[in-house]
Amino acid sequence: MKNYIKTDEWNIIEEGFDPHLNKISESIFSLGNGRMGQRANFEEAYSGETLLGNYVAGVYYPDKTRVGWWKNGYPEYFAKVLNAANWISIDVNIAGETLNLHTAQVTDFRRMLNMREGYLQRTFTAELPSGKQVKVNAQRFCSISDDEAGAICYQITPLNFSGELTLTLAIDGDIKNQDANYDEKFWDEVTKKVYQDSAYITLRTKKTAFEVCTGMQFQVYQNDQPLALSAEPIQREKYVASRVTVPVEQNQETTIFKFAANLSSENYPKDKLLEHCRALIQKITRKGYNQMLQEQAQAWAAKWEESDIVITGDAAAQQGIRFNIFQLNQTYTGEDARLNIGPKGFTGEKYGGTTYWDTEAYCVPFYLATADPQVTRNLLIYRYKHLQKAIENAEKLGFTNGAALYPMVTINGEECHNEWEITFEEIHRNAAIAFAIYRYVQYTQDSAYLKEYGLEVLIGIARFWAQRVNWSKAKQQYVMLGVTGPNEYENNVNNNWYTNTMALWCLEYALEVITQVKANSPDDYAGLVQRTNFQEEPETTKWQHILKNMYLPEDKEQGIFLQQDGYLDKENILVKDLKPANRPLNQKWSWDRILRSPFIKQADVLQGMYFLEDRFDLETIRRNFDFYEPRTVHESSLSPCVHAILAAKLGDEERAYQFYLRTSRLDLDDYNNDTEDGCHTTSMAGTWMSVVEGFGGMRVRNNQLHFNPFLPAKWQSFSFKIRFRGAILNVEISQEGVLLTNFSGRAIALRVYDKSYDIQANASVLINPNEAAPN
Amino acid sequence: MKNYIKTDEWNIIEEGFDPHLNKISESIFSLGNGRMGQRANFEEAYSGETLLGNYVAGVYYPDKTRVGWWKNGYPEYFAKVLNAANWISIDVNIAGETLNLHTAQVTDFRRMLNMREGYLQRTFTAELPSGKQVKVNAQRFCSISDDEAGAICYQITPLNFSGELTLTLAIDGDIKNQDANYDEKFWDEVTKKVYQDSAYITLRTKKTAFEVCTGMQFQVYQNDQPLALSAEPIQREKYVASRVTVPVEQNQETTIFKFAANLSSENYPKDKLLEHCRALIQKITRKGYNQMLQEQAQAWAAKWEESDIVITGDAAAQQGIRFNIFQLNQTYTGEDARLNIGPKGFTGEKYGGTTYWDTEAYCVPFYLATADPQVTRNLLIYRYKHLQKAIENAEKLGFTNGAALYPMVTINGEECHNEWEITFEEIHRNAAIAFAIYRYVQYTQDSAYLKEYGLEVLIGIARFWAQRVNWSKAKQQYVMLGVTGPNEYENNVNNNWYTNTMALWCLEYALEVITQVKANSPDDYAGLVQRTNFQEEPETTKWQHILKNMYLPEDKEQGIFLQQDGYLDKENILVKDLKPANRPLNQKWSWDRILRSPFIKQADVLQGMYFLEDRFDLETIRRNFDFYEPRTVHESSLSPCVHAILAAKLGDEERAYQFYLRTSRLDLDDYNNDTEDGCHTTSMAGTWMSVVEGFGGMRVRNNQLHFNPFLPAKWQSFSFKIRFRGAILNVEISQEGVLLTNFSGRAIALRVYDKSYDIQANASVLINPNEAAPN
Repeated sequence: MKNYIKTDEWNIIEEGFDPHLNKISESIFSLGNGRMGQRANFEEAYSGETLLGNYVAGVYYPDKTRVGWWKNGYPEYFAKVLNAANWISIDVNIAGETLNLHTAQVTDFRRMLNMREGYLQRTFTAELPSGKQVKVNAQRFCSISDDEAGAICYQITPLNFSGELTLTLAIDGDIKNQDANYDEKFWDEVTKKVYQDSAYITLRTKKTAFEVCTGMQFQVYQNDQPLALSAEPIQREKYVASRVTVPVEQNQETTIFKFAANLSSENYPKDKLLEHCRALIQKITRKGYNQMLQEQAQAWAAKWEESDIVITGDAAAQQGIRFNIFQLNQTYTGEDARLNIGPKGFTGEKYGGTTYWDTEAYCVPFYLATADPQVTRNLLIYRYKHLQKAIENAEKLGFTNGAALYPMVTINGEECHNEWEITFEEIHRNAAIAFAIYRYVQYTQDSAYLKEYGLEVLIGIARFWAQRVNWSKAKQQYVMLGVTGPNEYENNVNNNWYTNTMALWCLEYALEVITQVKANSPDDYAGLVQRTNFQEEPETTKWQHILKNMYLPEDKEQGIFLQQDGYLDKENILVKDLKPANRPLNQKWSWDRILRSPFIKQADVLQGMYFLEDRFDLETIRRNFDFYEPRTVHESSLSPCVHAILAAKLGDEERAYQFYLRTSRLDLDDYNNDTEDGCHTTSMAGTWMSVVEGFGGMRVRNNQLHFNPFLPAKWQSFSFKIRFRGAILNVEISQEGVLLTNFSGRAIALRVYDKSYDIQANASVLINPNEAAPN
Repeated sequence: MKNYIKTDEWNIIEEGFDPHLNKISESIFSLGNGRMGQRANFEEAYSGETLLGNYVAGVYYPDKTRVGWWKNGYPEYFAKVLNAANWISIDVNIAGETLNLHTAQVTDFRRMLNMREGYLQRTFTAELPSGKQVKVNAQRFCSISDDEAGAICYQITPLNFSGELTLTLAIDGDIKNQDANYDEKFWDEVTKKVYQDSAYITLRTKKTAFEVCTGMQFQVYQNDQPLALSAEPIQREKYVASRVTVPVEQNQETTIFKFAANLSSENYPKDKLLEHCRALIQKITRKGYNQMLQEQAQAWAAKWEESDIVITGDAAAQQGIRFNIFQLNQTYTGEDARLNIGPKGFTGEKYGGTTYWDTEAYCVPFYLATADPQVTRNLLIYRYKHLQKAIENAEKLGFTNGAALYPMVTINGEECHNEWEITFEEIHRNAAIAFAIYRYVQYTQDSAYLKEYGLEVLIGIARFWAQRVNWSKAKQQYVMLGVTGPNEYENNVNNNWYTNTMALWCLEYALEVITQVKANSPDDYAGLVQRTNFQEEPETTKWQHILKNMYLPEDKEQGIFLQQDGYLDKENILVKDLKPANRPLNQKWSWDRILRSPFIKQADVLQGMYFLEDRFDLETIRRNFDFYEPRTVHESSLSPCVHAILAAKLGDEERAYQFYLRTSRLDLDDYNNDTEDGCHTTSMAGTWMSVVEGFGGMRVRNNQLHFNPFLPAKWQSFSFKIRFRGAILNVEISQEGVLLTNFSGRAIALRVYDKSYDIQANASVLINPNEAAPN
């Protein structure tokens, strides 16, 4: 855990330069706009510890799988997010010396991520080994309005000399993924062009043959006037640059504007890439840096308008939650159904793939509540497009007749994971994908989605579960053997309660949607039946039989569900019995010891109770929470949010707040010592859930929003914005009560503390918490 | 499955050259003498498919572990058998053309492994692209008498030309392991010397710094006369050679003798390696090829005298069993307690490590019965020497107080395996090591071994089991969670019956040996107690408590033991229900499907019944056999032997024979399409067990040999040799009965078909099977 980020409600600030923190800061201060993103690397040269990272959404490379021991069924290739051409590079040379913060004396270093307006700023004074001093102010952003473009304003002032600056403005495409399995480079050069003040390079990925054209144009200003400079073009393999020499006077500021763009063959014909890239570069250069920056601030203002959470009385919490919302909005904008939310967003290359069950289980509620429904719809359509691949994936594992098993990790629908106990057995991901469809339809009432896309996915998933269970002669019930539940600290278990329960839920929901679509859209249904070769008989009869005869492990004496068969045979010890030296278990204990211990990595039975909470009475939830929580080590960042929400539901406000704290500043404080690899982007949505569904007690039931909020003791107030069926609502919880403000032009009926309220268009209602007891 | 090896009782013969079979033949025709060995590569150049392999026992390299996903506890390094300098190379150049069977027209090719005398012979005629024809007769062996040496006799005759042969006699140390994890070479050069007719090179392994000096000397003869030739020395990095040019006449035979030796720093001071190597080379060169070959035949005759099995009426079976005995004797001679029996012997580099539980579970009976007791004793001492490493290995997994977990795979006592479900969980290996101690003492009555070495190992192992179980509050019994049994088609199961049962046996045996050593050797016991910090109280009380309160899964209704908890929840299908297209499962099914299926890779419950057979009545064995056998796919070559022995015990002679057939010619017929990687050396001992313990019904009970033989219907007779307490016995089973011949000078009392017999010194007894009914 680190504690070097300055507390500020709207900015992330680092003061003073500590090279040991640089890779962490590179992650935290990352920029993105949904289409492209980058780590907070330096523009000028840096020979210290750094993880260079530039990413273009949707562009991947299938790296040959590497394992110790091959297991049948592993994918041959593993799609990885590609580290792409570096366009920020501005090399500064002064009389033969290169400006390099690793070799210079650095003072007054300050790095700031302005979340309100969406830019990164860095200022410092550097004394070169020769004693020459320069002051630098560098600002840059990835544009939301021009989402294939970025811009840099780099200002440099000699403090104790006059002379010349030699500036090399480059695009370097000779990039390697740090996590390449076989130490290979993934890019080939296609073409390059270098002009006086601009340069372009098109690179092609090996195997996948994606092409990305990266271009840049620059301007150098002194005294607010552009300089007419003669540039020297520089070219080498996968590298283009322009070099200019600029005379400078002591204390005279030189400003370099560098405009850049990344255009991908996913969006343009390959033979037009350069042309479109030049057009865009020229457009933004004409627009100019200041205009671009102003548009950026406006675009971010619009995002905050819909998704901000305001906390008063706790600036660190305020900073933490805004950072999470900021990163989520940098990562995914929902405009393109081919994209998804990588677990590290654009902040690192670790893990590969872009899509985990995190998207459906943790991110969907955030985007549903804070963005246009189309954003979540696109996340669902992404999976719809991968249905055929999911069917093929299931076939590899021996399933037939259109059974679909979605991959554990993917970019293109193919499995990108190769650890049998997860790849093949952590099949509950299939249920999360079905559940996201349910949540989306429940939230938006977009039932058209079901007949067009949703039901086809539901049938594939239901078919999978119906084949995955088997009849136990011994139990005279269906069982599900050899799975890994959300708790990855157990592998290859039998009858994981969560998986069995969610499998049944999937069958039930598929049956319900079939009935609905069949009744309301018989033609669509007929088409679907044909397309999927769906045999209502005997398929649904089998599903019904499973629904009636499935085994779910429980301990009736204690009134709890059992995480899996045999869980009660485990040693009867609790997390509080563990010595601190044993934590985290995943670093301190060998894997077998973790597996046979009773300790739970992340919510498992409780995850199921969170998803299906209305099926369980409060006492059942309480008994299970009281049993499992003391056994859960929360070594997944996706765990505390579920516990926070359930604790809040159970009225345990203090524990709810404690769980919230565990992830609220996970990356800002480098809680797990791994932020240098990138941010935990998807778990940020979990923190949002802790606040909105936990403290705010927000649910959608019977087509209505419900709130059951409480104010954490440490806070003066908090408020969050919610989009619901076209209305935009601000929910503010303070000592005064719950203030509901409807920003939209239509009235909205909702329930707070189980009482109904109508909030008129553009009106507010203040509800005194004493008027209604929380349930 | 291939079928190209000619049937012959004493020889392995390949006729005709098929490059596609070359790597298989290189494995099958391998040579070894316990100290060194090699694949049957060609002496002359060969540019076709080949796996070059030369190995020096005890010399290994710790290759950095490579995995897809790191699990805590994995070893950092993985000790691998090293591919060492190639000393067989004799490059033949004729007027600028290199003799190379890949580019020549090859006729009359014949490769023969003479098992009776222990040499490899290869003859062929080759027509070079120019049309020049030569006839070659190449013979070589790894000497048993001079066990650091080998010799080659290479005879070449020009058939249609006269001219010159340019011969390059090399030692090539620039060798790479095909299975190197990071494509690195493992050898560095130390020194090299090239003389007129000899050359030496010393190479050092990276990291481990073993040094091996490989030397060679050669002679060239024509008309039985040595030629005086002027040799050109050739040196390059890790390579030494001498080149001579020999005038040849058409149809004149030139004979090249190449003598070679490998001396390792394991046996000599590093600074004396070259000196000793030269002395040995000079000694064997003086001795001469023919004398060496004669000694080789004598040494093998002595081995066969003790270990041969003779089968009449079935030449293929005869060839198969002799091949197995030959390979086992080539691999391990038992003179050096630092060595062990690699799963591929000296026939390939796959798998790494040299020591698996195969040694204790399958090889010990062979060496006990066919070799001096010291041979098995050395196998036990090998593990004794690794006890401290086994304790450290257990500590890594969280065990304390001298608990020992022996590694799954090892060369030097450290774990060389990295697949969590095996490395950390296939802990039953510990029991096999204890059981081998029991078997050795039972067979030899060498109780001194227990007080000196055995008990210390037993205490470490017992301590492990006592910590590995845990008390189940639910069952009010001890359980053992998260293990992998011998059936590796199940991972991370709870209460594997075999593991639980053998763990109890270990505790019981340790208690028994403690009582015995304490009573008979109180001083030794006191020393041991101090050395191991053994606290009889409370340690043995805990063991007793476990013995009384351990849970063993069974199904009382069916009267069977359960392979593990939940086994009866699996789908109720049998191997006979599988379509042939699904076999072998490990190639056709994804891993998860194998795991959740009821199919068993190798004997598991039955392995336990084999080890502890006297604890179970025949009906219990039959019920378990009848339940598990139809569910076992025998995809481990270690499985059929156990089934053969149990089937024989149950009186099912036909099935016993069928199980025997599955491994009897496993490598000769390339049954599993993997012999090209090397032979299945350790499973060869299982075939021996099928014959001796299965068909021969041999057991040791109450200090006596017992036989309960039957004659497989296809055979006219079979006989095997047994060493027991100084006596050498031949047991011949034929239609006439059981003929027991005592070759030794002392009488031996034994039981056949449960009747007692005394076989006087150097006398025979014929027992008519009708006189006694098998039990």
